[in-house]
Amino acid sequence: MTEPEIDERRRSIGARRNPATQEAILDAAEALLIEDGPAAFSIEAVARRARAGKPTIYRWWPSRGTLLLDIYHRQKPAVIHADTGALEEDVTLFIERLIGYWRGGAGQVFRQIVAEAQRDGATAEKLREYAAARRHQTGALFERAIARGEIAPDTDPLLAAEMLSAFAWHRLLTDRLDLDRAEAARIARQVVRGLQIKKS
Amino acid sequence: MTEPEIDERRRSIGARRNPATQEAILDAAEALLIEDGPAAFSIEAVARRARAGKPTIYRWWPSRGTLLLDIYHRQKPAVIHADTGALEEDVTLFIERLIGYWRGGAGQVFRQIVAEAQRDGATAEKLREYAAARRHQTGALFERAIARGEIAPDTDPLLAAEMLSAFAWHRLLTDRLDLDRAEAARIARQVVRGLQIKKS
Repeated sequence: MTEPEIDERRRSIGARRNPATQEAILDAAEALLIEDGPAAFSIEAVARRARAGKPTIYRWWPSRGTLLLDIYHRQKPAVIHADTGALEEDVTLFIERLIGYWRGGAGQVFRQIVAEAQRDGATAEKLREYAAARRHQTGALFERAIARGEIAPDTDPLLAAEMLSAFAWHRLLTDRLDLDRAEAARIARQVVRGLQIKKS
Repeated sequence: MTEPEIDERRRSIGARRNPATQEAILDAAEALLIEDGPAAFSIEAVARRARAGKPTIYRWWPSRGTLLLDIYHRQKPAVIHADTGALEEDVTLFIERLIGYWRGGAGQVFRQIVAEAQRDGATAEKLREYAAARRHQTGALFERAIARGEIAPDTDPLLAAEMLSAFAWHRLLTDRLDLDRAEAARIARQVVRGLQIKKS
């Protein structure tokens, strides 16, 4: 890859006829987030780092929270959902992996996104859509279990998925991510089997 | 009730030898919150309203979020928890009443508290304690059901209570409080009975 001319490099991202501009801003924002953490993250700092004008950034991201959510989503690994053939194990792994991922630093970013969504309408709307998409993805665990005949066919997969996400959010937002496999398994057991006394 | 002398009224709350000072600040803060809403709420505005010095307020509440949480707690009705003798009904009522209470405006306050807790350590700690106390309270629903022989004796009441609170928080934080009785009952049914196919 050849270096661009000095003059070309100095021109702002917004001025380039580069179709990857949006991607370039996300790259700069992501680097900034990794270096300085979510508290210092601002549209101003991203604009400086990306050599882009603030209007260029605001064209795609109306607020700090919406940009944070795109970075968070881009970084998040796709392999949160296991398919072991047994629902309780799939649920245990989901809880364990999501909480583990958040413990690794991404949780600090997601906390800021949730906080921002309580003040900023654009972030709120984007987070709502994001959470709905995740519920559909996690709901597939329950759909597969219905197809296997493992759980009742009238199970609401989205409601079940929401119980799991909600529990994970609650742990994150109250700073209680110190969850081990035994606790994840206890949660999975409760969600799948319920609380009633089992008839053998 | 007689009006105090003008001079007495003009003296700041912090200067009075009044044991109800803390209570007076909470009264002023509550009135301000009702009039201007949570977004405009600040320690500065409370100090003006209560005619108290900021140091007096900071002595008891290190941040905006901690003061908001005390007001929220003070306003919240104690009758969230029903005791109908049937766990599914108690859980349905708990979900319905909590979400209904939040819909009435208190939810806007609680959202701000949760948001603040993601930035401010003092609010985070106080919210963590508050949530733990609420879990113990809600856990009593499950303890009574164990005592009645309605659910398995090895049920973890605090974990079950956390599933409910977490679900309610999630609805609040994603602005989806439009929950009706049928949905509350579906959640209660899932928590209590689980998802497995029932053997008759």
